[in-house]
Amino acid sequence: MANSPSGDSMLDRVVRILESFDDTQPRLTVGALSRRSGIPQATTYRLVGELVQHGLLTRETDGRIRLGLRLWELVARSAPARDLREAALPFLQDVQSVVHQHTQLAVLQDGEVLVLERLSASDSVVNQASVARRLPVHDTSLGMAMLAFSPPEVQDSYRHRFPRVDERSAATRRDFRRTLAEIRRRGHARFDGMLDEGTTGISVPVLTRAGYALAALGVVVPTSAVRQHAVVPVLMAAARGIARGVGERPPDGASFSH
Amino acid sequence: MANSPSGDSMLDRVVRILESFDDTQPRLTVGALSRRSGIPQATTYRLVGELVQHGLLTRETDGRIRLGLRLWELVARSAPARDLREAALPFLQDVQSVVHQHTQLAVLQDGEVLVLERLSASDSVVNQASVARRLPVHDTSLGMAMLAFSPPEVQDSYRHRFPRVDERSAATRRDFRRTLAEIRRRGHARFDGMLDEGTTGISVPVLTRAGYALAALGVVVPTSAVRQHAVVPVLMAAARGIARGVGERPPDGASFSH
Repeated sequence: MANSPSGDSMLDRVVRILESFDDTQPRLTVGALSRRSGIPQATTYRLVGELVQHGLLTRETDGRIRLGLRLWELVARSAPARDLREAALPFLQDVQSVVHQHTQLAVLQDGEVLVLERLSASDSVVNQASVARRLPVHDTSLGMAMLAFSPPEVQDSYRHRFPRVDERSAATRRDFRRTLAEIRRRGHARFDGMLDEGTTGISVPVLTRAGYALAALGVVVPTSAVRQHAVVPVLMAAARGIARGVGERPPDGASFSH
Repeated sequence: MANSPSGDSMLDRVVRILESFDDTQPRLTVGALSRRSGIPQATTYRLVGELVQHGLLTRETDGRIRLGLRLWELVARSAPARDLREAALPFLQDVQSVVHQHTQLAVLQDGEVLVLERLSASDSVVNQASVARRLPVHDTSLGMAMLAFSPPEVQDSYRHRFPRVDERSAATRRDFRRTLAEIRRRGHARFDGMLDEGTTGISVPVLTRAGYALAALGVVVPTSAVRQHAVVPVLMAAARGIARGVGERPPDGASFSH
């Protein structure tokens, strides 16, 4: 494998170039790409040329570079989470149309919450700007709903990954375990104002046959909203529908008896 | 650049591996990947290992390979056509809710029509299965609506690319030019039963300031539907809204006076 003098492979460098783009910086000059990726400018220039030739990047008329439509096409055609997103979308829209609040589908990825779909409060249009965003696990009902229904080794790896939790006092560590147990018992996670003042996140896991979370479904509602409690059964029913849609048979009364 | 004995670069091989997946074959064994990409099995095996390590591919529990969630995330966060798709989605939903038929947004890509979004007839849910599909240019109202509002060199490159048109008689070639002129005059393209018997495709271009198509917006309606003509102004108004949404100021009465 063609290694550079610094020892990183060609693929490392390609991935670092692709990772340099994000929603705030979708277009970059070659110079900016070089700085963001930490790859020397001459190498960046040559690599960008090759990636443009393959359609993975596009050079705009002003010379700036962005991800290519060919790359979007490859991924859209065979999107990794497409089965789950397709199965979930009608249920997300059902929840949104009953609850009239932000409705989200997320998975655990690399110790963070990765948002797969999000419908805004005002209508049932997918809010693409916030799709593919990452959120912390321990500050969100989405993250905690999944963590509570994860195998012990995942919960352990999470604690290992997030020193913020482990470095707290023993009491807090006990609280953390107790919180997960409580979420399992109730079948849903609820957090007030963890991300935004005045909002409450309520999420339930989408469960596999074995009773583990493959995703989470959640809403963000004003904390003052009446009838918050009515949200949970709506979410639970929808989560079962999503699980069924991807070929899982959620355990009987899973969310309550787990 | 690390060239294999056959002379293709590492990047060639990575792209061929990524291209091997599609909506009918989202999961492949390493053997099938090797066959579909034409890359020797040992090389495929090594490359897959590296791609899995970078999260661009994922190995499932049964050993089969699929595109990685990390790749989806990279692309979703900075999707090449996201500005256009975001600007278009509310208008697609408006059209769909008035017309109640399949509503699509597409661009020209490599001499074909690439579908960016598609709302189904029965509801306004994005039909992800048909997103990123390619359609022929000359058999679809989407393709012809864009071609009619393309610079002469694009129209020429299209004729060059599609011998089916050029190899026909001079009369047909004249028909082709006349068809494009007619679409420009009317501001929309309409084709009966070109893709499916009993359906009519009606599309309008989304125009830049300069009066060229940057995309097309179209519906597929039953040919027998009454009030087909009422569809065109709805599409035209929506196309202007989409153009405005991506910072273009569509020319005054563009579609009629062009």
